[in-house]
Amino acid sequence: MQSLKDMGLETSTETREDFVNFKINPSVVVYPRNEKEVVKVVRYAYENRIPIVPWGAGTSLTGAVSCEGCILLDMKHMSNILEINDVDWYVRTQPGVNLEFLNKKLMEKGFFLPPDPASFFLCSVGGAVANSSGGMRGVKYGTFRDWVLSLRVVLPTGEVVQVGEPFRKNRAGYDLVHLFTGSEGTLGVITEIWFRIIPLPKEKMIPIVSFMPDLDSTAGVIQEMRKSGILPEIAEYIDSEVIMALNTQLNAELRESKGGLLMLRVEEHDLEKIKEILGKWHGDVSILNDEEWERLYSLRAQSAIALKAMAKEMYVEDIVVPVSRLMEAVKRLKELERKYQVKMPVIAHIGDGNLHPNILLKDKEIADELFHEVGMIAVELGGSVSGEHGIGVQKAKLMGIQVKRHGGMKVLEIMKGIKDLVDPRGIMNPGKYVELAYNIMKQERNE
Amino acid sequence: MQSLKDMGLETSTETREDFVNFKINPSVVVYPRNEKEVVKVVRYAYENRIPIVPWGAGTSLTGAVSCEGCILLDMKHMSNILEINDVDWYVRTQPGVNLEFLNKKLMEKGFFLPPDPASFFLCSVGGAVANSSGGMRGVKYGTFRDWVLSLRVVLPTGEVVQVGEPFRKNRAGYDLVHLFTGSEGTLGVITEIWFRIIPLPKEKMIPIVSFMPDLDSTAGVIQEMRKSGILPEIAEYIDSEVIMALNTQLNAELRESKGGLLMLRVEEHDLEKIKEILGKWHGDVSILNDEEWERLYSLRAQSAIALKAMAKEMYVEDIVVPVSRLMEAVKRLKELERKYQVKMPVIAHIGDGNLHPNILLKDKEIADELFHEVGMIAVELGGSVSGEHGIGVQKAKLMGIQVKRHGGMKVLEIMKGIKDLVDPRGIMNPGKYVELAYNIMKQERNE
Repeated sequence: MQSLKDMGLETSTETREDFVNFKINPSVVVYPRNEKEVVKVVRYAYENRIPIVPWGAGTSLTGAVSCEGCILLDMKHMSNILEINDVDWYVRTQPGVNLEFLNKKLMEKGFFLPPDPASFFLCSVGGAVANSSGGMRGVKYGTFRDWVLSLRVVLPTGEVVQVGEPFRKNRAGYDLVHLFTGSEGTLGVITEIWFRIIPLPKEKMIPIVSFMPDLDSTAGVIQEMRKSGILPEIAEYIDSEVIMALNTQLNAELRESKGGLLMLRVEEHDLEKIKEILGKWHGDVSILNDEEWERLYSLRAQSAIALKAMAKEMYVEDIVVPVSRLMEAVKRLKELERKYQVKMPVIAHIGDGNLHPNILLKDKEIADELFHEVGMIAVELGGSVSGEHGIGVQKAKLMGIQVKRHGGMKVLEIMKGIKDLVDPRGIMNPGKYVELAYNIMKQERNE
Repeated sequence: MQSLKDMGLETSTETREDFVNFKINPSVVVYPRNEKEVVKVVRYAYENRIPIVPWGAGTSLTGAVSCEGCILLDMKHMSNILEINDVDWYVRTQPGVNLEFLNKKLMEKGFFLPPDPASFFLCSVGGAVANSSGGMRGVKYGTFRDWVLSLRVVLPTGEVVQVGEPFRKNRAGYDLVHLFTGSEGTLGVITEIWFRIIPLPKEKMIPIVSFMPDLDSTAGVIQEMRKSGILPEIAEYIDSEVIMALNTQLNAELRESKGGLLMLRVEEHDLEKIKEILGKWHGDVSILNDEEWERLYSLRAQSAIALKAMAKEMYVEDIVVPVSRLMEAVKRLKELERKYQVKMPVIAHIGDGNLHPNILLKDKEIADELFHEVGMIAVELGGSVSGEHGIGVQKAKLMGIQVKRHGGMKVLEIMKGIKDLVDPRGIMNPGKYVELAYNIMKQERNE
């Protein structure tokens, strides 16, 4: 790729790994400084039919940025916040900005961008949009797809477009903003983002920790809160294995708890009812001060890192089940643990039915089989194989099965048709996600 | 269309008009009783290449359901609420259900579906989804596209699919739910909807009415509220002409006000600050009791009906401008009134920059010219030609101009490509919206 260097672009030839050890072996890494340079690279890739993969901060958990011989587009230089607008309530930013940094800047002005993936202190906002990431506040505020107003995108043909408008109410045409959000770099390269922002909440929120007898009773608590019309800001669960990992790896000094712990942040007027529900399900409840809460929130965000430190490699599951079926999901996870004679430590955004059972890898073949079976629990209970981590290469087959069963093969065909429409030469992050899911299911049908 | 009758389908041959007098002259009206019957009709239309137009309650304001010689699919028999789930927080419903009826049923269980278009007492939920409608609570809760979890759709080929999943967190593939929401019946026939629902708010909300010196100062109030980080539940404006129409047509007995009135519903802790802002802009403020508020809310919903009763025909504009540019928009609207020597009574969801200047028709040619110029204000101020009423035939050219200027011609090409992908024979509500906008802009380019 001498020619990219000759165009005046900054390049290197380093290899990388993502957070779960998928390999990235590009033929060249390019570090564009602005949109024009992105266009140059994409045109070059288009003309020469070379795969191109955008890279934010490499925190993908599904192999979404893995590649062999691609042009890797590292967006780290495009990391400016361009405008914080306190009247129109948006922030306009380049994709390489770190999410925690962005939120600090917003908070200085009394605003915030709610989604907070556990990788918030590492990830780039471009990656979070490409992945439509979620986080702990998701139960109240949704995921990134609820917060993107508009995107500038360099399409796989090198053309530059803007989808959406930088305000909320817009009916001019089919909704393409939501199509590009969560497209995992398969439809183009994001070069600018307008996020909707909102004022920091004024209500006093009460942080609670409750040590639970087991995950089953935690599911019971969540279901009863729902029936009582209570929407917490945060409802997170970690089990005893995760607590142990935090204690041994990060000196967390958390109280050991056979049944794990549930952390809640709730509105003051819901507090009495919540205490009543927790009591009924034998939770041991404490109200935290702000400092204790911040510490627990930070530990929760590092849970996966602590777990991973205990194994050489780890698969992070990300299934969603309807809240009404949480107990069945828990039962079936326990059955799998018995069947495979393994422990799957569970981290969960329990408030929205989003479970992360983690598989610490010893035997890869068995792990792959188990991974698939966990995903099938979601499919069979009417849930989803991914709530917030996305599909990449790792979950393409499971996604194919889910979409075919719940939506119909035709839905996969439409998705694949859109991919072909926007990326006619198939160069943008190829061989993954929608394209891979479609190809797997098509092949199965032909067999 | 004898053959449709022979299939055992209920049919008629009546003609209709929508709310703004677009003509609907179908060759046959079919009243399907279930999804299977919808499939029968669509397959027949597909095989015989006959245009097919879904009809909810006919409250379209843009000619979105107008047709000449089509099969009109009247969904009135498919009007059952199928399930209200108080754990998973969704309602599953058929498209023909009346929105007000649905919300009454939800409220009995302590829940609601926030978007409240002014036609809420008339419209069908299927139409509201097809149109991605907004409403008075939009400033806080967004529009219908923020509340649709999943849709069953009979595609233009007669195939049945489900897009999305009946819960919020789902990353299995490109987001097609948002693509079908707001597709104005051009991508298929909606046969089942899962809406996200939430508990009725527990906070005490304070209803306020403020008589304003003019629309300009009302814009000032909204901008200052934004800067102060205040998000009202409702922020609506009607001008003096609208007040007069309500008084003469509906005996509203509202106090006449040269500058119109601003109605707000706000959280208690914001009240003092809001009073201060209103005072600064010379608003004459009263706090209402619940009964007074309900009456005003209902009158506000009927404003367009009252206005329309004063003219034979009326064009309802629906422009959005960024809140930061509201004052420029107001100035330019006044200039147009002077230029054309007409009054355009303004109804506005002022809180989100969504203005409805209404053009009472005398001379159609002049009205068309004025309509276009109002739309261009939105385009030029970086806004949108439609916030919630959609495009239909009426705003297709304006939409084309907006999308081309703000997003690029390529965006229209992608939208048109999606239409062709999903509707290869071009039979679903043809000649409107995306297709029409694309064709107009393409022709202009070729000229």
